[in-house]
Amino acid sequence: MASQIPEVVILRLPLYARTLAALRDSGQEVISSHELGGKLHITPAQIRKDLSYFGKFGKQGRGYNIKRLLEELQQILGLNREWSMALVGVGRLGRAIIGYGGFAPQGFRVVAAFDTSPELVGTQVEHLIVQDIAELGATIKEKSVNIGIVAVPASHAQEVINVLVSSGVKAILNYAPVVVKVPEDVRVREIDPVLALQSMTYYIKKAKERPAEAATRSRQKRAALSS
Amino acid sequence: MASQIPEVVILRLPLYARTLAALRDSGQEVISSHELGGKLHITPAQIRKDLSYFGKFGKQGRGYNIKRLLEELQQILGLNREWSMALVGVGRLGRAIIGYGGFAPQGFRVVAAFDTSPELVGTQVEHLIVQDIAELGATIKEKSVNIGIVAVPASHAQEVINVLVSSGVKAILNYAPVVVKVPEDVRVREIDPVLALQSMTYYIKKAKERPAEAATRSRQKRAALSS
Repeated sequence: MASQIPEVVILRLPLYARTLAALRDSGQEVISSHELGGKLHITPAQIRKDLSYFGKFGKQGRGYNIKRLLEELQQILGLNREWSMALVGVGRLGRAIIGYGGFAPQGFRVVAAFDTSPELVGTQVEHLIVQDIAELGATIKEKSVNIGIVAVPASHAQEVINVLVSSGVKAILNYAPVVVKVPEDVRVREIDPVLALQSMTYYIKKAKERPAEAATRSRQKRAALSS
Repeated sequence: MASQIPEVVILRLPLYARTLAALRDSGQEVISSHELGGKLHITPAQIRKDLSYFGKFGKQGRGYNIKRLLEELQQILGLNREWSMALVGVGRLGRAIIGYGGFAPQGFRVVAAFDTSPELVGTQVEHLIVQDIAELGATIKEKSVNIGIVAVPASHAQEVINVLVSSGVKAILNYAPVVVKVPEDVRVREIDPVLALQSMTYYIKKAKERPAEAATRSRQKRAALSS
């Protein structure tokens, strides 16, 4: 059954888990699909449908038991364990990623960092000694790395991702602003703030144009009336 | 017409623009929806449908003129101009955002940075002097800021976003790991690497379980054969 779940559903489950964890921490025990939907701007029907892929949670009219649903989601997503990650690219962005405080509390650890620059290899960044990219394959096996993080320039991203894939990594967090090719059994998620910004400027621009258009129409109307 | 374009289409347009810009820079002049789709893992039919919202591009069987399509997309998305952004939260993440080299080449500039910490206010970070959050409203008007960037802890995100919204900001890039509420005319995009990771661990876990299940089945089969 689990193999036919649409990826768009899988993409929403971490959002559910995050919200349920916050509710549990606040002491709430039960939540309706209506209330959960309100918090996430998702319809209650969508939430019920998403969760129905994984069996029966909650009873009609009673809402979901927050603790139980959260545990189930953590189990489904594999969030109740530690994941080891290898970072490639220790420039300014890479350093910020190593120092990012949001990974560890959620069980994600950067356990190795790689670069090609002779000036960086061998230096210490936080708890890590930067390694030469040539050691990537061996280190990934040795440290059981599951996830690769790519923080190299766009022009080098595909090449680095090929090395990660050939070393057995099946999940890649790509900070390089480029769409990369991977085999079907490898997942890539892009973190690109510029793409996010560019999908909002359309709306700012439109909102700014609308009052101007309205003013033009109003002037035309006045002109028409006075002629 | 433009007001009925689904948001999911708007979300894809920056991807098209980025890919077309790379093709233009490489000297290519024409591209088919098939080739563009191959690069982006989107079906050619989807690409043709997305672009059809904005009028007629390219001719059947001839492909798209890359330069012309790119210019149209840049015009539609408002990418052919500068956008001013205000950052709230100058911790480690905020500093990395100020120093991020990917914004400026795309026309996005952090023109002001705010924090509440008396130790940070007045200090210089790159080209900016950190301001007290109390100055936010006035600075946003003075510097014509269109976009807010939120890099404060999750517990303070909603409060900061309320201030940005009441100061007239209509687009927010939210790095705080929490879903926030905004009025209908305000857009929010979340940048959350943990959510992205959590939507991949499901697949790693499943892939690891599958060979084990297969091995179990194989053992059962052998057992059945030998009994």
